[in-house]
Amino acid sequence: MRGLIVGRWQPPHKGHVKAIRWILERVNELIIVIGSADQSYTYENPFTAGERFEMIDGALKQEGVSRDRYIIVPVPDIKYNSVWVKHIENYVPEFDIVYSGNKLVCELFRDEGYKVKEQKMYEREKLEGTRIRKMMLENKNWEELLPEYVVSYIKKIDGAGRIRRIEGLYE
Amino acid sequence: MRGLIVGRWQPPHKGHVKAIRWILERVNELIIVIGSADQSYTYENPFTAGERFEMIDGALKQEGVSRDRYIIVPVPDIKYNSVWVKHIENYVPEFDIVYSGNKLVCELFRDEGYKVKEQKMYEREKLEGTRIRKMMLENKNWEELLPEYVVSYIKKIDGAGRIRRIEGLYE
Amino acid sequence: MRGLIVGRWQPPHKGHVKAIRWILERVNELIIVIGSADQSYTYENPFTAGERFEMIDGALKQEGVSRDRYIIVPVPDIKYNSVWVKHIENYVPEFDIVYSGNKLVCELFRDEGYKVKEQKMYEREKLEGTRIRKMMLENKNWEELLPEYVVSYIKKIDGAGRIRRIEGLYE
Amino acid sequence: MRGLIVGRWQPPHKGHVKAIRWILERVNELIIVIGSADQSYTYENPFTAGERFEMIDGALKQEGVSRDRYIIVPVPDIKYNSVWVKHIENYVPEFDIVYSGNKLVCELFRDEGYKVKEQKMYEREKLEGTRIRKMMLENKNWEELLPEYVVSYIKKIDGAGRIRRIEGLYE
Amino acid sequence: MRGLIVGRWQPPHKGHVKAIRWILERVNELIIVIGSADQSYTYENPFTAGERFEMIDGALKQEGVSRDRYIIVPVPDIKYNSVWVKHIENYVPEFDIVYSGNKLVCELFRDEGYKVKEQKMYEREKLEGTRIRKMMLENKNWEELLPEYVVSYIKKIDGAGRIRRIEGLYE
Amino acid sequence: MRGLIVGRWQPPHKGHVKAIRWILERVNELIIVIGSADQSYTYENPFTAGERFEMIDGALKQEGVSRDRYIIVPVPDIKYNSVWVKHIENYVPEFDIVYSGNKLVCELFRDEGYKVKEQKMYEREKLEGTRIRKMMLENKNWEELLPEYVVSYIKKIDGAGRIRRIEGLYE
Repeated sequence: MRGLIVGRWQPPHKGHVKAIRWILERVNELIIVIGSADQSYTYENPFTAGERFEMIDGALKQEGVSRDRYIIVPVPDIKYNSVWVKHIENYVPEFDIVYSGNKLVCELFRDEGYKVKEQKMYEREKLEGTRIRKMMLENKNWEELLPEYVVSYIKKIDGAGRIRRIEGLYE
Repeated sequence: MRGLIVGRWQPPHKGHVKAIRWILERVNELIIVIGSADQSYTYENPFTAGERFEMIDGALKQEGVSRDRYIIVPVPDIKYNSVWVKHIENYVPEFDIVYSGNKLVCELFRDEGYKVKEQKMYEREKLEGTRIRKMMLENKNWEELLPEYVVSYIKKIDGAGRIRRIEGLYE
Repeated sequence: MRGLIVGRWQPPHKGHVKAIRWILERVNELIIVIGSADQSYTYENPFTAGERFEMIDGALKQEGVSRDRYIIVPVPDIKYNSVWVKHIENYVPEFDIVYSGNKLVCELFRDEGYKVKEQKMYEREKLEGTRIRKMMLENKNWEELLPEYVVSYIKKIDGAGRIRRIEGLYE
Repeated sequence: MRGLIVGRWQPPHKGHVKAIRWILERVNELIIVIGSADQSYTYENPFTAGERFEMIDGALKQEGVSRDRYIIVPVPDIKYNSVWVKHIENYVPEFDIVYSGNKLVCELFRDEGYKVKEQKMYEREKLEGTRIRKMMLENKNWEELLPEYVVSYIKKIDGAGRIRRIEGLYE
Repeated sequence: MRGLIVGRWQPPHKGHVKAIRWILERVNELIIVIGSADQSYTYENPFTAGERFEMIDGALKQEGVSRDRYIIVPVPDIKYNSVWVKHIENYVPEFDIVYSGNKLVCELFRDEGYKVKEQKMYEREKLEGTRIRKMMLENKNWEELLPEYVVSYIKKIDGAGRIRRIEGLYE
Repeated sequence: MRGLIVGRWQPPHKGHVKAIRWILERVNELIIVIGSADQSYTYENPFTAGERFEMIDGALKQEGVSRDRYIIVPVPDIKYNSVWVKHIENYVPEFDIVYSGNKLVCELFRDEGYKVKEQKMYEREKLEGTRIRKMMLENKNWEELLPEYVVSYIKKIDGAGRIRRIEGLYE
């Protein structure tokens, strides 16, 4: 059985890795969609799809998860919600079940006939993208919330510095 | 004489229907443009163009307004205001006069040489899209602000539930 | 029961009108989609969606077909075939059955679970858009292939002249 | 040596003109990019690219700056930051150095191998686009912040009135 | 009086320069629009807008035409012919008269109320973009058809080699 | 060392698999880009990116190539060649060397500073996408040109039938 999970992974954090491991106990293979793949260098989406790919892939490798168990697929945005599930389907191999913690995502996939399961969340008040980006902006202890591989990758590309420099290209 | 009115109709409310009736006393035929026709499943634009078409058409039928008096035309957004009037012209049959309560809309059509008339508004503090969507979100008495046909249609598709579930696809 | 038919109607010809009448004997109401609604002033798509709307509507009126039996909906292109049916669904009210003479259209709607019926074609070797546009270009007897209303409308806007003037904007 | 400066110039103000003069003491020729050239008739971007072209060109002429020293190039937005510098390169002749007061702009050009210099700002707390548009909205003394040519041009097209009329096309 | 001329200038040839000089005897200032400014590295559009800007500007300089007499404005394509004139208007300063050798361009500007004049063509059978690009592809004597400045610029960037290498990115 | 190869894989054939194996003797890991990922159900691009992903992945598995050696990344088209390399970079992890048999692709990557190597082609006159799609259209012996896994996958989804049904959606 093949599962699918959708996220923006800006950046991938410890809660993400735990959720992926939890799903992998339930499916043979997991498609990890990188949403908003065309977005980068903005406060909401600081990292490119390629950087996010590298971070997810490296973090899972470090955890000892084999690539036989997952595939990562970047998918650009489509500002057209009523065709969104079809848009995802276009980019990824077939799947049997969707995991998500978002009610609208659940509904949209259900409306297209998919089996959908609520995704387990881990310490959501702490492990949450918006909060982590804010900590990077303010130079707080964001490192302890991310997998080791992701921390060293972000340091290598000075990702926290990038977030601080982003204030809108034309202002 | 053929008139034109532009709106997003999210959703069509009693003020809309009154305004259409008021205009129909002044023109033979009215083109009802559904703007932002490519938007749906967002808080600002919860309903698809097709759903809005059905709601306007059904509400006017219930009021006894014949289709000989109006045509409904969905028009997608163009994020390019300086060509906006030409964009509308591309989608609709010719028209002689524009009714609108929005000053910029009035100016843009006037600049292209159209006759423009201020549209009569009905109880605008009560009958207003943003306010009605908020009432649907908060499960308040929105039903009394909409035509009967629209109320039953929204209930059939659980439109109020949809608004409550919309929180952004990737968050 | 509500049917749906998709075409580009460049321009609407006598075969189109016969086909619509034939379908209207089988459904209560017909949604007439004007495809490629964002295209105009090209050789393939000389007329705007608004002009095509006017021509279809006028031709049906002349035939004595009431607007209670059909609705016309312009839909812009989406260069993304795998979401095409969802894209159509976004723009139009719900429908039960699709009529088409194109095999891929039939398959795409069937894949989404729609009932699809082969549309009857009338004198297809004569009544065919590409052929008619070529006749307009070469100033041949195109008038006898179109409904009277369409002929006079095209003459009013000098549509045949427009086709002759179109040679690509930048060449 | 040819320099490049990027701005939205909504509208061009006295600080802009001073900055251009300061740069022109350092380069032979300056490419003045008009960013967001596809935007207009919004609160953030009230003026079209063509209007902004005219205002910059006229203000420099009035200052006695010859067109031999600068070229103005409108460039539309690309909502895709990781290709942004390449996008600018596509539209303009070659250049050797970039002047900017924005940290992300500086970083993006540096990443592509350009020499980048911090641009001198003049009375930034007073001479700043957002603040000036707000003053036009509120009918305050915006005239003293803009070059004479720009003031008379904005008055000719009633630019301040336009800003007051802009409240979103569909609301 | 300000004139406007639209072309793709792929590449600018001797006929173009003669036409511009001929127009400059009739207007004070000429807006030279570089159409399809977003296209490059294709057989139809081998050169970027920036390269074309440099070639036109350099050729006119070599001819002794002052920049006080012309401005060059790159404009991206809009695949939407019915708003095309408005799209051009958005990018350029105001103009009084349009020069063109293309019948549809003439008609579209006339429909928007502009004065339009047939542009004089020079040895059109020889001096024509499609033919010149084919000569570059086949390594024939294209150099004698272009202004000296353009020839040396194309040689500097190996433009003829680029045309020979272009066969479609994915084939 | 990480390599990159770009193709449309419509469909993946035996020459592709041999080329990938040949490259994998030279790099540790290979990024396989699926170009035109947004295209499908056309004669040039009959299969969706997801279907192509499945076919490449399955064919490599059948050959005994481990996923540790490659990653597959679908990338949509950008009709804007001068930013094309940056666009690819946005979607994929970092890479050191590019393999391609296309001269323009080689040049574009070299211009961005990449090491580029000519890719070995296998029986190109036989193993070539355009030719294979034509054979599928004409119901000829296409099966012997594709890896076993790809043949059975195409049969499962009736891919050859799809190609025969594609004649353009609106004709």
